[in-house]
Amino acid sequence: MKNLGYYDGKFGEVEEMSIPMADRVCYFGDGVYDATYSRNYKIFSLDEHIDRLYNSAKLLEIEIKETKEEMKAILQEMVNKMDTGENFVYFQVTRGVGPRNHVFPTDGKKGNLWINIFHKNIVDIYKKIQVITMEDTRFLHCNIKTLNLIPAVMASQKAKEEGCFEAIFHRSGRVTECAHSNVHILKDGEFITAPLDNLILPGITRKHLIKACNKLGIPVKEIPFTIDELKNADEIIVSSAGSLCLGVDEIDHEKAGGKAPELLKKIQDEMLREFLDETN
Amino acid sequence: MKNLGYYDGKFGEVEEMSIPMADRVCYFGDGVYDATYSRNYKIFSLDEHIDRLYNSAKLLEIEIKETKEEMKAILQEMVNKMDTGENFVYFQVTRGVGPRNHVFPTDGKKGNLWINIFHKNIVDIYKKIQVITMEDTRFLHCNIKTLNLIPAVMASQKAKEEGCFEAIFHRSGRVTECAHSNVHILKDGEFITAPLDNLILPGITRKHLIKACNKLGIPVKEIPFTIDELKNADEIIVSSAGSLCLGVDEIDHEKAGGKAPELLKKIQDEMLREFLDETN
Repeated sequence: MKNLGYYDGKFGEVEEMSIPMADRVCYFGDGVYDATYSRNYKIFSLDEHIDRLYNSAKLLEIEIKETKEEMKAILQEMVNKMDTGENFVYFQVTRGVGPRNHVFPTDGKKGNLWINIFHKNIVDIYKKIQVITMEDTRFLHCNIKTLNLIPAVMASQKAKEEGCFEAIFHRSGRVTECAHSNVHILKDGEFITAPLDNLILPGITRKHLIKACNKLGIPVKEIPFTIDELKNADEIIVSSAGSLCLGVDEIDHEKAGGKAPELLKKIQDEMLREFLDETN
Repeated sequence: MKNLGYYDGKFGEVEEMSIPMADRVCYFGDGVYDATYSRNYKIFSLDEHIDRLYNSAKLLEIEIKETKEEMKAILQEMVNKMDTGENFVYFQVTRGVGPRNHVFPTDGKKGNLWINIFHKNIVDIYKKIQVITMEDTRFLHCNIKTLNLIPAVMASQKAKEEGCFEAIFHRSGRVTECAHSNVHILKDGEFITAPLDNLILPGITRKHLIKACNKLGIPVKEIPFTIDELKNADEIIVSSAGSLCLGVDEIDHEKAGGKAPELLKKIQDEMLREFLDETN
């Protein structure tokens, strides 16, 4: 298949798939998601993404029908149906079907599993990207990977219109994360990343970056940093499942980073090595 | 029909309706909505609700296919298909269908109109309600009536579990609104309501309440008020399209309001009179 859709046991090309109008996602965006990549039909870091999905669901009291092992098996089965082994592997769980009513359905049924898989290569991680910055006006539950993504949609569109890859959010000057990535800086040989709280997603690639830094002997600091520190950093790193570890060379259309290219490349090499080894 | 669903020109019983899996509401909650009531097959304050829907859409750059007149005609046509004239009339527009990608689709197509109509009477407005209070952790775009409603879902569920009708939000003590209503107080003969900004929805029933107060000679103040002021108010009023004007007698399981019953009743009588007259 080219663009596989899966909903609660049924699957097909996503363009031909339909879902019940009364799924709560349609009225409330009432669901959580996760996503990773496959290469050679191997799904990268699947356990970690599954664990995060279940945690997101738990935080919103969404019950999942499938066990983690069952969900992993379904995802692998769906990946195996694809025409190519290099894919974006997206999955979500919504809080079931019911009359439009804010309170949870009382029918005792559990959430619905959705999958969407389509061909997409990991981006060229050595190519520099450009970003804009914006005030972070999102809710205070950014640690949960929900389907309430309008602010991320609006910010991504704004970035695109300005010819940029991402929008970096800040709350009154304190950098949080991007529209669909985490962001980190290198300064004086150290890797600095915002601490895990309700303002950012606990990025799985972020965790792998910290592991890579530990392996490479690069000190890691999980502390808040500001827009000024971002703009004056030696390097700026944007990370997500699909981008792994991208260097930034322009912020708000002004030159940035580029002062520690060897250190950046070391981290990128290690991130790419891990991805390629594990999906070999 | 009992529970009518409409999607982009097709309609039927909502339980039998399906929608494309690739509608952006499924991945991003990417849409806006509005809702009102019908009685005797007459839709109350429809122009105002249509205007607000178009304004919500404009703020998110969602283009609507239908003109306002066309949308009104479709809504009336659908209301006419119902078994009863007393209904909740819900409508939303999503940003169309496309591959899962944060940025707007580039196919040039406009948003999809959805409708959901089902039997529901206006609540008994003279029956007192009980509420809880909660920190407002929502995003800073509450003036837009979006489908990103998870915080409202969670708060409504919490209220229900505590045997309450609504949850009143506050930001560090400043009262904003409820999970799915506005909130106001009566104090020393005055009607006090939070000002219109990005923290609250510009409620249409709120506007009608102000109009009713003006008519009745009750002074209106559009100023922020606190949780303390709420708890010590003479009366607390919760308003929405479906509740019109409800008095609160318990906040966080402690007695509240009840100190200006005649003034409250005057406003309620006027609100109900207007609704009944316009849907006669």
